[in-house]
Amino acid sequence: MTTTARNQSATGTRIVLGSNQYGKAEVRLVKITRDTGRHRIQDLNVSSQLHGDFEAAHTEGDNARVVPTDTQKNTVYAFARNGVASTEEFLLRLGEHFTSSFEWVTGGRWAAQEFFWDRINDHDHAFSRNKSEVRTAVLEIRGSEKAVVAGIEDLTVLKSTGSEFHGFPKDKYTTLQETTDRILATDVTARWRYNTTDVDFDAVYASVRELLLDAFAQTHSLALQQTMYEMGRRVLEAHPEIDEIKMSLPNKHHFLVDLSPFGQDNPNEVFYAADRPYGLIEATIQREGTPATHVVWENIPAFC
Amino acid sequence: MTTTARNQSATGTRIVLGSNQYGKAEVRLVKITRDTGRHRIQDLNVSSQLHGDFEAAHTEGDNARVVPTDTQKNTVYAFARNGVASTEEFLLRLGEHFTSSFEWVTGGRWAAQEFFWDRINDHDHAFSRNKSEVRTAVLEIRGSEKAVVAGIEDLTVLKSTGSEFHGFPKDKYTTLQETTDRILATDVTARWRYNTTDVDFDAVYASVRELLLDAFAQTHSLALQQTMYEMGRRVLEAHPEIDEIKMSLPNKHHFLVDLSPFGQDNPNEVFYAADRPYGLIEATIQREGTPATHVVWENIPAFC
Amino acid sequence: MTTTARNQSATGTRIVLGSNQYGKAEVRLVKITRDTGRHRIQDLNVSSQLHGDFEAAHTEGDNARVVPTDTQKNTVYAFARNGVASTEEFLLRLGEHFTSSFEWVTGGRWAAQEFFWDRINDHDHAFSRNKSEVRTAVLEIRGSEKAVVAGIEDLTVLKSTGSEFHGFPKDKYTTLQETTDRILATDVTARWRYNTTDVDFDAVYASVRELLLDAFAQTHSLALQQTMYEMGRRVLEAHPEIDEIKMSLPNKHHFLVDLSPFGQDNPNEVFYAADRPYGLIEATIQREGTPATHVVWENIPAFC
Amino acid sequence: MTTTARNQSATGTRIVLGSNQYGKAEVRLVKITRDTGRHRIQDLNVSSQLHGDFEAAHTEGDNARVVPTDTQKNTVYAFARNGVASTEEFLLRLGEHFTSSFEWVTGGRWAAQEFFWDRINDHDHAFSRNKSEVRTAVLEIRGSEKAVVAGIEDLTVLKSTGSEFHGFPKDKYTTLQETTDRILATDVTARWRYNTTDVDFDAVYASVRELLLDAFAQTHSLALQQTMYEMGRRVLEAHPEIDEIKMSLPNKHHFLVDLSPFGQDNPNEVFYAADRPYGLIEATIQREGTPATHVVWENIPAFC
Repeated sequence: MTTTARNQSATGTRIVLGSNQYGKAEVRLVKITRDTGRHRIQDLNVSSQLHGDFEAAHTEGDNARVVPTDTQKNTVYAFARNGVASTEEFLLRLGEHFTSSFEWVTGGRWAAQEFFWDRINDHDHAFSRNKSEVRTAVLEIRGSEKAVVAGIEDLTVLKSTGSEFHGFPKDKYTTLQETTDRILATDVTARWRYNTTDVDFDAVYASVRELLLDAFAQTHSLALQQTMYEMGRRVLEAHPEIDEIKMSLPNKHHFLVDLSPFGQDNPNEVFYAADRPYGLIEATIQREGTPATHVVWENIPAFC
Repeated sequence: MTTTARNQSATGTRIVLGSNQYGKAEVRLVKITRDTGRHRIQDLNVSSQLHGDFEAAHTEGDNARVVPTDTQKNTVYAFARNGVASTEEFLLRLGEHFTSSFEWVTGGRWAAQEFFWDRINDHDHAFSRNKSEVRTAVLEIRGSEKAVVAGIEDLTVLKSTGSEFHGFPKDKYTTLQETTDRILATDVTARWRYNTTDVDFDAVYASVRELLLDAFAQTHSLALQQTMYEMGRRVLEAHPEIDEIKMSLPNKHHFLVDLSPFGQDNPNEVFYAADRPYGLIEATIQREGTPATHVVWENIPAFC
Repeated sequence: MTTTARNQSATGTRIVLGSNQYGKAEVRLVKITRDTGRHRIQDLNVSSQLHGDFEAAHTEGDNARVVPTDTQKNTVYAFARNGVASTEEFLLRLGEHFTSSFEWVTGGRWAAQEFFWDRINDHDHAFSRNKSEVRTAVLEIRGSEKAVVAGIEDLTVLKSTGSEFHGFPKDKYTTLQETTDRILATDVTARWRYNTTDVDFDAVYASVRELLLDAFAQTHSLALQQTMYEMGRRVLEAHPEIDEIKMSLPNKHHFLVDLSPFGQDNPNEVFYAADRPYGLIEATIQREGTPATHVVWENIPAFC
Repeated sequence: MTTTARNQSATGTRIVLGSNQYGKAEVRLVKITRDTGRHRIQDLNVSSQLHGDFEAAHTEGDNARVVPTDTQKNTVYAFARNGVASTEEFLLRLGEHFTSSFEWVTGGRWAAQEFFWDRINDHDHAFSRNKSEVRTAVLEIRGSEKAVVAGIEDLTVLKSTGSEFHGFPKDKYTTLQETTDRILATDVTARWRYNTTDVDFDAVYASVRELLLDAFAQTHSLALQQTMYEMGRRVLEAHPEIDEIKMSLPNKHHFLVDLSPFGQDNPNEVFYAADRPYGLIEATIQREGTPATHVVWENIPAFC
């Protein structure tokens, strides 16, 4: 982004506007499709942010180029009238609209959370929320580049055995005992970047979800890192349209309770589920040679 | 509870200790049953509070009768070693222990939230959390009386049609339009009181849950009050072991977005899901002649 | 409340509507008083619920008596136009309006949270939120009776010494060590009931807040119960217009970290602040002979 | 980071481990300094994550280089025994320890939230939490580079006048009216990067906080962007040791309530404080020529 120096600081350097974005966050959209008596529901939390030349608003309060965030909100609802399709396709329509409608808007970031609903006993228009996970999608446009990142979050999983942790280095601050049988539990946050927009986004989401769950369940774990890597590897193996996947996995500790003061054994039956602190294991698994991108990884640090 | 006056206020009245309770809250217990290779998981958040003669602790800091909250926590874990059975049965074992072990403990309140887990692809020891609802249970003991209250919370449901609201009184502050077709959505919090402890608590929970969902789905609603009453009525009709049920139902407003400024119609397709304010509809449905009880209705106001 | 039996259950008993209430919750109201250039801000979260004869809405979906929750919301905003005065006075105006305007409305419950703002450097119209506590108020009307309950919540306090805990009974589940020096920390939730509406509510709130803080700080504590009782006692001694005060105090455990594996001592300097479980200490302190009331104690269980 | 290809996907590309980090998150540390009878309290939430060669853990479950997250937690507590100094200095000590103690640890990320406490009536050892803001600090080490980023969050501010918004472009989706007098409210999240570690971190924090508040209060605002830029500009002008500052400011809408149906005017006195959606305004303000860094901006997207 080109910026013009505006201010001179006491140290002689000039102070300028760097990267910036603005828009409307968390537009709560519920779309009911009523083309037949069997309704469908789509429940989204949409955010829209624009990139471009907004310097005058910052330095002079000149809003001539500031497409109001209220207008961005209205556009979300107006576009939904003609159908949402998949969440990613909806974001693509929004992004294309804003970047083609205002010459000074050179890109932006459109993101959504999608909440799931199940039918109540196969009812035509009664639903109950399935809160076991949240689907996410982000579109970033930067000039002629488009990046689509899909994701899943709040997916809580646990293995009651089949997890070990030993062979780690010891120093003067190490008190942890080695174990060959522990509970392994985590909240899965994953984000994956597509290398194309020609994707059946709903179908791939369902497949990735299944691959992540299955890899978590099937992997005999010597480290949460190993489980995480295997989860990502399987996704990339099955989906050539995905170039990289990032995961952030808290190690949700379940501590075996010492019942010996009460004359009881505890053969991995009674656990205390701790809140904080927790381990935090994060990585990118990617195709070799994947170039760095400008993508902002929603809720995942763009570490290293 | 008998209290002895201890203090004289400026106004000449004496200041005394009234009702009181203390204990340990939110003991996070995960119990794995490993009697076969096919593990079972029970995930509870248990609270234990004691009633009795604890006046000296309050007025003199004399702890001779204060069973430590830490001891109450230990007891939860020790008792879990021998199995939890149903959540209600676990609370009954805890309550009977504390009231029989310390002569000055005349009662108490034992409560739990229970979190559900599904097997991942029918795996023997890998699970994913089903967050679509939370089960609750409360045992209150007061002398020789025992009250068991079961419940459900965080169960979010929605009907995309089959809900009307009209015929209401108008005054100078009324601007709401009548409607014959709106979205009806709520988060179900329900608590029901058993008139016996001789109950298959897991089976009745499953049945009540199903009755609540089915009544919500099947009732053509002229008012959320009507839907709520029908939900409760069906539970009481099917379960003679339940004397009363209380519900607290927020009316989660979904406002039809006015798309006319954009030249679009909106035939109940595009909605804004609002956060606050929300309607709040609460009632007890009960068998005629049900006597008032001393029960504390967890998360439900003991209104009127 | 009089209810007419409507349904016959399988067991032969009739199923009836019990106590009930409905209204609008969490109406977010910000009132700016601009009578001079030095603005004042009042920031409230108001709930209004009506009691009365609403049986037809429940059993027949007949809304002829259902003052819409939307109308209740509008009334809150309209009444605010003429000034809020104290939060309690605002609730009194609302309650009197609803009970005098609709003959079938026999009472209700009006409640508010009040959020505080400080001036930024004594600026006339720029403020920063003071989040260190939330003030609460509840008005309950039942026929000709009016009860006003004020409160404070989210007030977090800690003493780094001056707290002991010993002399408690031991059983087979006791592992806690006695201590003569520990951290004592809690989040104060208190509710007090006035015996009159002829009160300078803002002034008494400020006084009660100060008395609670000062009693917490000054009391050398042998038990959190003792500290709590002293906090309540001082409030009742100073304020004859208050008949009872209820408190709910979590004992927020700060565990001394065992640094001996690292060759270090730890003379009460390094603590781990735990999340769950926590102790929970609750009591009413009252004037002798205070009669039981119908009051719902917001966020405080009406225990025992 | 060097990675070795391990897996061949169906498309012929190899799947490799990319960037990664792991550690212990949210270690809750309360440090009491008791060198005199007048205690001091420091209340931190510390996270430690390591960067380096951890590939074998991911691909083979070989933990020979995995310094346990439990050891990282222990180290936090052990280091606190000798005093925390400023939060940034504490993180620097931790970072230097881990990068110098394990040859395969080439860097990492150490972060903390700091919570503030006020003395109760100037008491020596009784405190109440000041929740009006949270201080943050992050240290990132990458080889020989060290970056220190300080911050503030949860600082909620409001101006009841002195804010306008007009002159914006209109399109077919624009319905917003122009205004010359509105409420401007936001929750300030700011992060600033030091160009040196030779800083009096506590003093600069206090100064930046004051500059941000004062700029918010004093700026007559034509756009939140303008207010934000002015806030950042003043910080950079006053502090040559800071190279850039990023801010993320929600525009917390306060909508004027239309009271005309009730026959009332509303001259900017009665507002509805909305939850969602909200505007979101984000930018970097920096010295001209500031190079891009590898820094992860905690809670602020590294946009553009």
